[in-house]
Amino acid sequence: MITQQSGPRPADVADVRTTNLVVVLRFVRAHAPCSRADVAAATGLTKATVSSLVADLLDRRLLRETGVTENRIGRPATMLEVDGSPYAAIGMEINADYLTAVAMDVGGTRLLSWRRAFDGTAGPASGTAALAALARRVIARLRADGRGVLGVTVGVPGLVDAAGVVHLAPNLRWQDVDLRADLHHALGGAFDVLVDNDANLGVAAEYRYGPHAGTPDLVYLTGEVGIGAGIIAEGRLLRGSRGYSGEIGHVPVVPDGPPCGCGRRGCLEAVVGLGALIGGPPPTPEHLTSAVRDLVTRAGADDRHVLEALDLAGDRLGRGLSVLANLLNPETIVLGGYYVPLAPWLLPSARAALRSGVLAPDSGGTLLAASTLGHSAAALGGAARVIDLVDAGRIPLLDPA
Amino acid sequence: MITQQSGPRPADVADVRTTNLVVVLRFVRAHAPCSRADVAAATGLTKATVSSLVADLLDRRLLRETGVTENRIGRPATMLEVDGSPYAAIGMEINADYLTAVAMDVGGTRLLSWRRAFDGTAGPASGTAALAALARRVIARLRADGRGVLGVTVGVPGLVDAAGVVHLAPNLRWQDVDLRADLHHALGGAFDVLVDNDANLGVAAEYRYGPHAGTPDLVYLTGEVGIGAGIIAEGRLLRGSRGYSGEIGHVPVVPDGPPCGCGRRGCLEAVVGLGALIGGPPPTPEHLTSAVRDLVTRAGADDRHVLEALDLAGDRLGRGLSVLANLLNPETIVLGGYYVPLAPWLLPSARAALRSGVLAPDSGGTLLAASTLGHSAAALGGAARVIDLVDAGRIPLLDPA
Repeated sequence: MITQQSGPRPADVADVRTTNLVVVLRFVRAHAPCSRADVAAATGLTKATVSSLVADLLDRRLLRETGVTENRIGRPATMLEVDGSPYAAIGMEINADYLTAVAMDVGGTRLLSWRRAFDGTAGPASGTAALAALARRVIARLRADGRGVLGVTVGVPGLVDAAGVVHLAPNLRWQDVDLRADLHHALGGAFDVLVDNDANLGVAAEYRYGPHAGTPDLVYLTGEVGIGAGIIAEGRLLRGSRGYSGEIGHVPVVPDGPPCGCGRRGCLEAVVGLGALIGGPPPTPEHLTSAVRDLVTRAGADDRHVLEALDLAGDRLGRGLSVLANLLNPETIVLGGYYVPLAPWLLPSARAALRSGVLAPDSGGTLLAASTLGHSAAALGGAARVIDLVDAGRIPLLDPA
Repeated sequence: MITQQSGPRPADVADVRTTNLVVVLRFVRAHAPCSRADVAAATGLTKATVSSLVADLLDRRLLRETGVTENRIGRPATMLEVDGSPYAAIGMEINADYLTAVAMDVGGTRLLSWRRAFDGTAGPASGTAALAALARRVIARLRADGRGVLGVTVGVPGLVDAAGVVHLAPNLRWQDVDLRADLHHALGGAFDVLVDNDANLGVAAEYRYGPHAGTPDLVYLTGEVGIGAGIIAEGRLLRGSRGYSGEIGHVPVVPDGPPCGCGRRGCLEAVVGLGALIGGPPPTPEHLTSAVRDLVTRAGADDRHVLEALDLAGDRLGRGLSVLANLLNPETIVLGGYYVPLAPWLLPSARAALRSGVLAPDSGGTLLAASTLGHSAAALGGAARVIDLVDAGRIPLLDPA
């Protein structure tokens, strides 16, 4: 059980000691194993200050001594590394057909990864209650393992403002839901709760943990019942003026095409979203995963009807993405969600359509690839967001009890 | 006549004295009138160092003494301000139907603004020669006024890489033209020559000089024979991985629509570019301006045919822009070029189409406005780019001769 330092938001951190704690923590993370003397030499802090800060971080169990000492000129130095194992960050995602939860320790080790079918279209009260219930189960598990929980970030497929209010999530049928406040309340007010768009969290996870990590101009496409893009430009998340960027799902692709959850027709997600890929009447959440598995099986068995449908879907997806590539010229676009198992059949025609739709030769260099993070991307990015709070100055305090 | 410090590119500036000269120059620009003591107090440089740096900047005529002294405790202080009048920066633009040139002094005062009809489609050799000839006339005029020329930036409607090579400019019919090297050579190698996309320079001008200056998420749309977008996100130009961002002109708007200069059909610029607005066979460059003037006259006289055509064009423009607004959620989109005189008739239907095409309520807050910089935007942004080089450490030296 831990408590958190309350008070100012990360950007306002003015407390010199907190700032110095973060400086030391970051240095050790980047340079471990290293000694107190190394920290002092690199940071310009006095050795006495560093000793005091390190003692504090050892108490909080954010650092630990490796047990190894290094013999240098003078006294042997005890080496330090980041511990972080006593603390866990939780990332969750709600989508039209499932909930996910991921927990990571401060060192970035994944502690658990859960997914379950859920009818996300049953309204905000049901969705919030289900998220809170799942969060409580995760928290109980983490505590049983002796870990303190730092906070929870939830990804939502829709327009989320900076305060964590979901203004519109067509595929959940949510409008103006203050999810951050509701969930904070439902969890007893004990944790930081953050809410962001699922694609924004997905691209953050790809930027950090995916095979394209560190690509400065990176786009992540959620391949779910809805489709959204998370955009990183020159290493920074592009949010737009109100936080509503990335709505590629509502680019018109087929004039007078099938109706879309947003009320328009022929939008990208209406023609290549999961519902369109599966066809027929909207299946229940439980059936979506098996319907995709069935598609994969039939495509693998060269079912001509399925191969043609996926080829056409890839072409339309590529046409929609060419609009994004013409505007943003990213280095890589990563396809996530249900597109991952279907990628072998979607990618060829999608890449061809991208090449033909982008003005710059060779698609302007934009590569199209399938994610390796699967349905966990948004939740992983959410957990990472919580861990980032520590680096931003929200140093956790282990409760003495 | 001046020479320039040669050597490292701005980002590599390592020379401490140059860095300090820039620090002093920037401080005085931001806080003029101010004294040497003010500079020393704010920058942490010693008074002796500041006196020496200021003497250098006075010699180079980048600073001047205002003649006013301020009586404070102790000795009266002589006040300083930025001079910059002896130096001029040149911005130019080549488009399908015209050339423009703008000159500004380092203080940001516009010294001249020229525009002339030109057939930009006659090939790169003709275009480069015309740009060089126009640059020479501007340089001669500036020198006759006793000014030294810092450099030239040229805006081109197409894909320009970081080295200043124009890879593709469909409406000029250019491909792989090393305009930077060619123009540098044509001007005798005496100046910095920079080349960038016209929309990138246009948005830089709007961000600096337009009524929406400082808007962190700002888009500028060139309204010419072609259409391109310059994108500023969180105060930074969004270039993409190879510099090919902003190609909104080739978003498909009308399926199987009219052919576009890029070889595709129904692109945004094929249906609402200048050629489409005027209709009929492609007019000569000299006739384009008068054709637009004629449209404005007829629209002003409530010519039903023209009003309907502009209403439809505004609708299609708004539909194309809604794709951009869904992806980027900018605060403001500024319409430039020929759209400025036509704005009164384009904006109503364009705004309505934007509202209906953007997923977020109220267009996600994105405003649509007409530029006040007219056809000078790209050239203005180009001149500003040259002035920025001074701040980046390319301190000019007045030639003693």
